[in-house]
Amino acid sequence: MDVPDPVSTLRARLAELADLHHAASILGWDQQTHMPERGAPARGAAAGTIDRLAHERTADPALGRAIDVAEAAGEDRGLIRAVRDDHERAARVPASLVTAMTEAAVAAQPVWAAARDADDFAPYAPVLRQHVANCRAYAACFPEVAHPYDALLQRFEPGATTAELRVVFAELRAGLAPLIAAIAARPDPGDLAGPFAVADQRTLALEMARAIGYDETAWRIDQAVHPFMTSGGREDIRITTLEDEASLAIGIFGVLHETGHGLYEHQIDPRWDRTTVGTGTSLGVHESQSRLWENMVGRSPAFWAHWYPRAQALFPTQLADVPIERFLASINAVRPSLIRVDADEATYCLHIVLRFELEVALIEGELDVDDVPTAWDARMRELLGVEVPGPAQGVLQDPHWAWGELGYFPTYALGTIVAGQLWEAAHEQLPDLDASIATGDLTPLRDWLGEHVHRPGRTRTGDEILRATTGRGLDSGPLLRYLRQKYGTLYGV
Amino acid sequence: MDVPDPVSTLRARLAELADLHHAASILGWDQQTHMPERGAPARGAAAGTIDRLAHERTADPALGRAIDVAEAAGEDRGLIRAVRDDHERAARVPASLVTAMTEAAVAAQPVWAAARDADDFAPYAPVLRQHVANCRAYAACFPEVAHPYDALLQRFEPGATTAELRVVFAELRAGLAPLIAAIAARPDPGDLAGPFAVADQRTLALEMARAIGYDETAWRIDQAVHPFMTSGGREDIRITTLEDEASLAIGIFGVLHETGHGLYEHQIDPRWDRTTVGTGTSLGVHESQSRLWENMVGRSPAFWAHWYPRAQALFPTQLADVPIERFLASINAVRPSLIRVDADEATYCLHIVLRFELEVALIEGELDVDDVPTAWDARMRELLGVEVPGPAQGVLQDPHWAWGELGYFPTYALGTIVAGQLWEAAHEQLPDLDASIATGDLTPLRDWLGEHVHRPGRTRTGDEILRATTGRGLDSGPLLRYLRQKYGTLYGV
Repeated sequence: MDVPDPVSTLRARLAELADLHHAASILGWDQQTHMPERGAPARGAAAGTIDRLAHERTADPALGRAIDVAEAAGEDRGLIRAVRDDHERAARVPASLVTAMTEAAVAAQPVWAAARDADDFAPYAPVLRQHVANCRAYAACFPEVAHPYDALLQRFEPGATTAELRVVFAELRAGLAPLIAAIAARPDPGDLAGPFAVADQRTLALEMARAIGYDETAWRIDQAVHPFMTSGGREDIRITTLEDEASLAIGIFGVLHETGHGLYEHQIDPRWDRTTVGTGTSLGVHESQSRLWENMVGRSPAFWAHWYPRAQALFPTQLADVPIERFLASINAVRPSLIRVDADEATYCLHIVLRFELEVALIEGELDVDDVPTAWDARMRELLGVEVPGPAQGVLQDPHWAWGELGYFPTYALGTIVAGQLWEAAHEQLPDLDASIATGDLTPLRDWLGEHVHRPGRTRTGDEILRATTGRGLDSGPLLRYLRQKYGTLYGV
Repeated sequence: MDVPDPVSTLRARLAELADLHHAASILGWDQQTHMPERGAPARGAAAGTIDRLAHERTADPALGRAIDVAEAAGEDRGLIRAVRDDHERAARVPASLVTAMTEAAVAAQPVWAAARDADDFAPYAPVLRQHVANCRAYAACFPEVAHPYDALLQRFEPGATTAELRVVFAELRAGLAPLIAAIAARPDPGDLAGPFAVADQRTLALEMARAIGYDETAWRIDQAVHPFMTSGGREDIRITTLEDEASLAIGIFGVLHETGHGLYEHQIDPRWDRTTVGTGTSLGVHESQSRLWENMVGRSPAFWAHWYPRAQALFPTQLADVPIERFLASINAVRPSLIRVDADEATYCLHIVLRFELEVALIEGELDVDDVPTAWDARMRELLGVEVPGPAQGVLQDPHWAWGELGYFPTYALGTIVAGQLWEAAHEQLPDLDASIATGDLTPLRDWLGEHVHRPGRTRTGDEILRATTGRGLDSGPLLRYLRQKYGTLYGV
C-alpha cells in the first residue's frame, strides 16, 4: 500500500479548502450579479454551509498535524506560516462564537438598511452593540496580542497592529490637513459636463483594462450595485462595475480599481494553484493594487497623455473643447465630503482614520454605542470640516459594521499608504515608467508588480513584500510626498 | 443539554446535502453560461470536490442511522424512501469505483470530441470500452436486480426495469413505423423562410414562458451552447437557450422545453425546501414536463390560435403571408433524420430505442465495442431508413456515452410516453383545456400539473404519480393515440 507523502497530504487538504473557497466566491458573485431576487434565502443557506464546511476543515486538528508533518518534510516556509496562521486562528475561536457572529451579521443587514432608510440610528444601536460584544469576545480568544483591536485587525491584515496604525494615521492626519486646507482655498475645477453614454464608457474602460491585463479568455465583467472583484482561481477573474451616464469618472475609475484587484489574483504564481496561499496576501496589499491603478496611474497626466485623445474621440461633444489640463483637474478635484465611497484621493484616508478611532474606542469600552453618532459627527467636523445632516449620511452610510467587520476599514487606508510606497519604488526602479505610461504601454508596471508583489501570493506577508521592494516597512511618507507633488502641480499649492 | 429530535437530525443532514447540490448546480450553470474559458481546470477541481463531499455524506453510515431513527419517529414515508434509496445506492458502490467513473468521464471528453471532429470511431473505442467495464462493475454492486442494466437505468429512473422498457419500446416501434411511413408518402410541408431576428425570438419566447409561469423575480434566462435548465432551489430557476436566426422553431421550442423543466422545480411544495426530495422525482418525469410544454402544448393548433397573431406581428415580412395551417404543418414536419437532438416528435423515440438496444447489448456482453458503429448504422437503416455517412453523424453524435452515462437515454423516451399519458389525463380532467390554451390561458394546465405532478417532488415515484393521475402505470398507448390523431389531422394519414 502506498503511504502518501507528507507534503501531498497537506496539499490535498489545502486543495479541498481552495475548492470550497472557489465555490463560495462564485456563489457570492452570482448572488450580486445574476441571481433572481427570490433566490436569496436558498443562497444564504447554501453559502452558509460552504463557509461552515471550510471553517470546520480549517480548524480541524488533523490539519494542524498535517502542517507539522509537511513543515518537517520541507514544505515551503511561507506556505506553512500562512496555513498555520489560518488554522490556529480558526481553531482558537469557538464554533459557537463563529456561528453567533455569522447569525448576528445576517440579522443585522435588514436592521441596518431600514435604519439607514429611516435616517435613524436608534433601531440599529442594539445590533451594533451585539457586534461589539461579539468582537470583544473574539479578541479575548487572542490574549497574546498587545491590544484587543489587533486581533480584529489581523483577521484582514496579518501582522498589523493598533500601535503601528496609530502612528501612521497620526502622520496622515498631520500631513493631509494643511494640504486639504490649501486646496480648499483654490477655485474648484468643476465637474465634466455629460452625459457620457454608458456603452461608450464600458468600451473605453475595457480598452484600458486590456492594456493593464484584462483578457476575455480569463476575465469577465458584469454590473453590480456595489462593484467588487472576485475570482474562481487565477484564470477566472471577475470584475464588476456600475456605470452612471452622468459621471465618466465612476465608470472609468471603478473599472481601473477592480482591474487592479483582478491583476493581483491573475498574476499569482501558478505553483500556488489549488492551495489557500494562491490569493492576495492581505486586504491592505490588495487595496494597494486597486488604488495604484485607479489613482496613481489612472488619474495621472502621463496616463491621459495616451488616453485622452481616445476619450475625446468617444465623447466628442462632451470633451472636444475641454483642454486636458481642465480634464485632469476635474478628475482630481478635492472636496471634503460626507460619504466615504465618493471621497477623493486626498480626503479618503481621513474617512478611515475616523472609523478606526471609533472602532478602537468601542473595543476599548471608552465609547458607548449610543454615543457613536455624536462622536462620528464631531470627528467629521474636526477632520474634514463638514456637518453631518443625519446618520444616513454619517454613521449609517457603510454596511461593514452591520457585517460585524470591525477591523476591516483600516485596510483601505493601509492600501493607499502601501500604494504610495510601491509607486515611489516603481519609479526608482523603472526610470522610464512615466514615459511608458504616456505611450500607453502599461506592461513594465504590470510586470514589475507581478514580480515584486503578486507572484508570491500569501507566501510573503505585506511587510516582507514592502521591505524587499522598498527597503522599509509601512511608511506614510511616500503617499504624502506623492499627494503634495501632484496637487502642488495641479493646484499650485 | 438539548437532545436534537430524530426528525430534525435527519433534516439537518439533508439540508447540508441540498446546499451542496445547490452549489454544484450554480457552479455548473456558471461554467456553461459565463465562466471564462481558461477557468475550466479550477472549476473542474472545485466541482469535483463539491460532488465528492456530497457523495461522502450520502454514503455516510450515520445518514443511514438518522434515516432509521427519523422513520421510527414518523418522518414522511415518501421522503424516507427516497433518501434511503440515495443512501443505499451511494453506500453500495465503492468509493474507488465512483472515482474511477468520474476520472474516466473527465478523460473521455476530449477523446470523444476529437474522434467526432475526425469522424473516426477508432480512438474513442478504448474510452467506451472502459465506460462499459465500469458500468458492468457498477451493476454488479446491485446483484438483486433482474437485469444488470436495471442498475444503470435506476440511477436516473428509480423503479424502471429493462423488461418494462423492452415492452413499451416494442410497442412504440410497432406503432410508430406505419405512422412514419404514411407521413413519408405525403408532401413535405417545407421550412419557414427567415431570417427571424434573435431579439424578437427571445421576446416571443419569453412572453410564452411568462404565460407558463416564468417570472423575473424567481427565474432567469441565458445563452448556452447546449441548452439546459438548472436551479438554485424552487425560487431560482435558470433556463438557457441558443437562438438561430435561421430557425424560429429552435428559439421558441427550446425555451418552451426548458420552461417545462423549470416549472416542475418551481412548483414543488415549499415544505421540501432544503431537503434532497425538493426536486423532480426522475429524469423521465422531468422530461415529460419539458416535452409536454414543448410539443403537446407548444406545437398544438390551440396554442397557436392565440400566439400566431403575435408571432406574425413580430415577424411581419416572414409570416404575414403564411397561413396558420402551413405554419402548423411546418413546425410539425416529420422527417426521419440522422441526429437525435434535431429529431421531430414522431421519430424522436426511435433514436432512443436504438440507443437502448445497443446499451443493453453492450452491458450483456452481446455486442463488442468495436462493432458498435456497424450495429448503429444497421439499426438507423432499419428503424428510420436513413444511411449514416460516418460516425460523427452516427454513434459519435451524443456526449452521453463519453460521460459514462449508460442508462440515461431511455429517460428521454420515457418522458415522451409519460407526457402522452399526462396529456390525455389532463384532457379528461380539464374538459376545457384546449379552449383555455386557445385563449392564451395556460394556468389551468399549470395548476393541474402542479397539483398532480410537481408538488410532491421526490416523495412520490413516477409510477405513483402516473397511477394516481391516470389510473395506470407506464403505457405507450396515449402517446401513440395522440400522435396518430395529430398527424392524421395535419397530414390526412
